[in-house]
Amino acid sequence: MTGALAGPAFTQGLFDRAAARRGDPDWIAAQWQSGARVIGFDGEQALVSDEGGALSLYPLRASTALADTAVLLGLTDEGQAVFAVDAAGLAPEAALRRDVRGLAAEGRLPPRDLGLVAEARSLLLWHARHRFCANCGSPTRPADGGWRRSCAACEASHFPRTDPVAIVAVTHGDRLLLGRQPQFPAGMYSALAGFVEPGETIEAAAAREIFEEAGLRLTRIRYHSSQPWPFPSSLMIGLIAEADHDALTVDRSELEDARWFSRSEVSSMLAGHHPDGLKAPMPLAIAHHLLRAVLAED
Amino acid sequence: MTGALAGPAFTQGLFDRAAARRGDPDWIAAQWQSGARVIGFDGEQALVSDEGGALSLYPLRASTALADTAVLLGLTDEGQAVFAVDAAGLAPEAALRRDVRGLAAEGRLPPRDLGLVAEARSLLLWHARHRFCANCGSPTRPADGGWRRSCAACEASHFPRTDPVAIVAVTHGDRLLLGRQPQFPAGMYSALAGFVEPGETIEAAAAREIFEEAGLRLTRIRYHSSQPWPFPSSLMIGLIAEADHDALTVDRSELEDARWFSRSEVSSMLAGHHPDGLKAPMPLAIAHHLLRAVLAED
Repeated sequence: MTGALAGPAFTQGLFDRAAARRGDPDWIAAQWQSGARVIGFDGEQALVSDEGGALSLYPLRASTALADTAVLLGLTDEGQAVFAVDAAGLAPEAALRRDVRGLAAEGRLPPRDLGLVAEARSLLLWHARHRFCANCGSPTRPADGGWRRSCAACEASHFPRTDPVAIVAVTHGDRLLLGRQPQFPAGMYSALAGFVEPGETIEAAAAREIFEEAGLRLTRIRYHSSQPWPFPSSLMIGLIAEADHDALTVDRSELEDARWFSRSEVSSMLAGHHPDGLKAPMPLAIAHHLLRAVLAED
Repeated sequence: MTGALAGPAFTQGLFDRAAARRGDPDWIAAQWQSGARVIGFDGEQALVSDEGGALSLYPLRASTALADTAVLLGLTDEGQAVFAVDAAGLAPEAALRRDVRGLAAEGRLPPRDLGLVAEARSLLLWHARHRFCANCGSPTRPADGGWRRSCAACEASHFPRTDPVAIVAVTHGDRLLLGRQPQFPAGMYSALAGFVEPGETIEAAAAREIFEEAGLRLTRIRYHSSQPWPFPSSLMIGLIAEADHDALTVDRSELEDARWFSRSEVSSMLAGHHPDGLKAPMPLAIAHHLLRAVLAED
């Protein structure tokens, strides 16, 4: 679990995204043609190599055929450009196709490579699903190394989305609130979460979400940490808060169940030793670290 | 300055957005027809009334003609539904057209109404600029009380955007880093800011932005607070951080200037008494409160 020890998955990306060079197509072309690192996807699956134990991102060649979908992820600390492509039909047979969530859970990719996968996946899926102009309906073309799509018809520019989500570890006295959505694996409970909507603060979104789903009012809402979650492009914003009472009104259209757990129960769920087989999220998820932070608090 | 004292503008919205009822068109229609509060815009201008001193949002009638663009903002604490419409040509002549930033600066609207304006403006502009399906180019239709657009051709659903921005008050010893963009009012300096991109944490976005624009590496990045910024739909995430050195490399393509200011200089800028007429952001902006928080830290 290399990635898990330092924190949740996807948090160790490239420091330098070369944002100031994105508008310079000649510079980008020169990087592509001179020793760039190229990673790829086949649809939603990442291309990897398994060299007997250690996993790595499959090294693609910067061919002309692949240049069409190339997005510039940034520069390594050594100054090497990194691109990502949707290789689809052009991916070599030797490359393994791997589910991104599975890669994060397994922890066999170096954390920095998992960061590249997150950036690449969000960006490539955004292109795949935004080929037309939302303003006028015309086809759009990628620009700025993949960080913009531009419409020749109405001149609109469109930018990749980042969707903020408030995820909240709620406490009341000695207990923690956890819930489960119907699609969770059997026995798994997690912190409640919801998208931050236009016109609200992070704290207001957290308060609204917990009131909607569990009927609780929050006090002492505190920020803990954040995590990119590339399914397809969320930004998880981890919070810890207290509920002003403990009587739950669970929204059964959103949640299969929500209830209070003792600290020792949460502790055994995190460790995978709960007597009834109940589970908490794995270390790849920010929820795991939020719950650990609450347990460590007192 | 009613709104300013409690915090930045746009932070006091509706608590209950009635999210669970958005999928129920009959319930929404019943709210529209029975005493809902309806506020409106004429393009990007909010419709207001000025009753000799106190400003209020102009009360529109829930007419059939206005129903087409109506979005459901939520419910007041008294249970009254609030809708917003793009009234454009249908707005009564008696309604004043007012710029939203001006309304926020002036502080004559009740803070809760300014929250409604923020939610409404982001949502209505999103509809105006997203009338077509980004996935297939076909026209889309509003659904869920304005919280979704759906495409009949490819069955894609599209949701309103919220674009997170990291804004950072950077300190080094006793000084603060402030910069100015070319379009700022004369003499105004503010904290540096940039969008959080797909695949990065809030903290990574802050570190990247400050390195790109000022050449500084950050340590001790701390969350302070957040603010919706409806131009058109940003979420400002306010941070305080320390720089590891003070030698600036300013990106002149982004900033007209950036430099270190003493605490007393920032204090006089916030109060509007700087000897050279330099200014800091007004209380409507989260930057004002970030700078005050740094000065209070000491």
